[in-house]
Amino acid sequence: MRIGGTHYRSIWMEEDPAVIKVIDQRKLPFELKVVKLENVKDVYDAIAGMVVRGAPLIGVTAAFGIYLAGLNSNPGNWCDEVNLAGEKLISSRPTAVNLKYAIDLMMDEVNCAGSREGMIDRLFHLAVRLAEDQVNECRKIGEHGVALIRDLYKRSGRTVNILTHCNAGWLACVDYGTATAPIYLAHDLGIPVHIWVDETRPRNQGARLTAFELGEHGVPHTVIVDNAGGHLVQNGEVDMVLVGSDRTTRRGDVINKIGTYLKALAARDNEIPFYVALPSSSIDFSMKDGNETVVEIRDGSEVTHMEGWDDKNKRPARVRILPETSNVANPGFDITPARLVTNLITEKGIYEATEEGIQSLF
Amino acid sequence: MRIGGTHYRSIWMEEDPAVIKVIDQRKLPFELKVVKLENVKDVYDAIAGMVVRGAPLIGVTAAFGIYLAGLNSNPGNWCDEVNLAGEKLISSRPTAVNLKYAIDLMMDEVNCAGSREGMIDRLFHLAVRLAEDQVNECRKIGEHGVALIRDLYKRSGRTVNILTHCNAGWLACVDYGTATAPIYLAHDLGIPVHIWVDETRPRNQGARLTAFELGEHGVPHTVIVDNAGGHLVQNGEVDMVLVGSDRTTRRGDVINKIGTYLKALAARDNEIPFYVALPSSSIDFSMKDGNETVVEIRDGSEVTHMEGWDDKNKRPARVRILPETSNVANPGFDITPARLVTNLITEKGIYEATEEGIQSLF
Repeated sequence: MRIGGTHYRSIWMEEDPAVIKVIDQRKLPFELKVVKLENVKDVYDAIAGMVVRGAPLIGVTAAFGIYLAGLNSNPGNWCDEVNLAGEKLISSRPTAVNLKYAIDLMMDEVNCAGSREGMIDRLFHLAVRLAEDQVNECRKIGEHGVALIRDLYKRSGRTVNILTHCNAGWLACVDYGTATAPIYLAHDLGIPVHIWVDETRPRNQGARLTAFELGEHGVPHTVIVDNAGGHLVQNGEVDMVLVGSDRTTRRGDVINKIGTYLKALAARDNEIPFYVALPSSSIDFSMKDGNETVVEIRDGSEVTHMEGWDDKNKRPARVRILPETSNVANPGFDITPARLVTNLITEKGIYEATEEGIQSLF
Repeated sequence: MRIGGTHYRSIWMEEDPAVIKVIDQRKLPFELKVVKLENVKDVYDAIAGMVVRGAPLIGVTAAFGIYLAGLNSNPGNWCDEVNLAGEKLISSRPTAVNLKYAIDLMMDEVNCAGSREGMIDRLFHLAVRLAEDQVNECRKIGEHGVALIRDLYKRSGRTVNILTHCNAGWLACVDYGTATAPIYLAHDLGIPVHIWVDETRPRNQGARLTAFELGEHGVPHTVIVDNAGGHLVQNGEVDMVLVGSDRTTRRGDVINKIGTYLKALAARDNEIPFYVALPSSSIDFSMKDGNETVVEIRDGSEVTHMEGWDDKNKRPARVRILPETSNVANPGFDITPARLVTNLITEKGIYEATEEGIQSLF
């Protein structure tokens, strides 16, 4: 997608095959800083330090990390070095499923009985393919989802208003994003859309990342506090809610950023559709009922302090926003029961959020 | 209620009858600064500049402003001066209903054919009575509401968890508050309560004021982002939702701080009670359907910027939290339909949120 008129992906390579580039997402939307990754340590630090975030992007970044490990390896010791890189990178964000998946795939290409050059070549091609697969998967989600937006537009003849929560955007993937893919495709096809962007406390991924993405690509949008969505839905100012998902159970319960459930309730109470865009790989068949999930409790400092930009001194700043003596709680996710989900939008098509609907996907 | 072990009201007088004292609420919770009001200009500035806020407190503060105008008036021109003060104060926050109500009552005591001393005496006693009436009304709301908390405690035998939104606390009133009155009474009676305090973006009245109030009075509480309430209700961690109301229609639709409606939906979806505490004077009989309300659209800077405390430099600070080019929208209130309201808690008792229930109040 575009930033300042130039097409970007969240990870890319230019002429030099020894340099991977990523956007430092910690600094968005206040600064656009491109970071070079030239070795395994750079890649590890970028993942662990959250320069890159979003499960799909983390996986692809780690894959390129394994490739760089091969490329920079000592010809006399390359096999050990690449294996060590795999072990190191897997610990960069221990809970990320895509990370392990990508690293496992890459390590399967490392044949210690073969040649170093052959290995480098295979690692390069596989990392590139994983990135392309990501892009294609998101584009397909977009192609299926855009039909829903087009239908709403045909019926009403006016701008389609879409409410989204958190960042399920191209910055979290490689391009297009999941929940944002239908939006970008609609916009690029000339279907008039306007996006209500939930701020998404406590980490403000909506206000910081989704607003940045949409604005740079030229998609009309308005940032609101998380409290405002119910009123807008009640008031007829939202035609659909469209969110991503961290994990979806085999009957269609959706585990996603805290606050998603409240928007699903508002959509149901006002009879507007609530769609979830997701790659089919994020469906967890081992789990039926979303309430089996242990919801991650995150650090309280995300609630007590707010990061932003000091307009006067032109630098990042951090303020405390509550009494020092108050307790805080910070659950990271909530569970939207399948009964509130209108449909799932996947790269394979649009499916009902039911056990039967999800089985028909495969 | 208590601050640091000392009992406070939000407005008071000490020995000197020419000095009214209030807490500068703009600085809470980071600084406790007491401001002296000694004349009409001081009172005007305190109301207009939001040193004091909350409809009941604004009304009482204006009443003391009229009294100060009388006290400080020139014996040769006192009648004109007091009338002028009334006109000036009514413009300090034009939309506040309680402000006009209190000033009208005070001005009725000004008899230009009578004596200046008699007028001062009457203004003093009426201002004091208006403050006392406020306190009594809130205490009665508390007495009715505490029965509901006690019932829950008797049934479960464990701490009663209450979720509240925004600040309907003693700082907005004179003492006790509305939604907080049952909570303070329960706590003081030894009924174990724990309060989930919604941060309440965009102005953070929950994180700044409710958390401060509860903490200083010793009530166990935990601040959460507005997104978290749905998950907590789903997870059985909330026994009741208890909020205030800016205005309630004659059939029981509740107009309150943006985000209230989302919590009412979560309560209903999980079959826990949703109570609204309010003085019966805030019921608007001219309105049946809450959707007749024109929701105030507030300044976008409340969304784009966040005020807080710079821990390092020990001073207030303000950060921007989204891209400069993004639009924002900032609706101030939402409407919770009567069907989602379990009961109304008023100073006259507990009533159904229906036209019949509300009529039986009067």
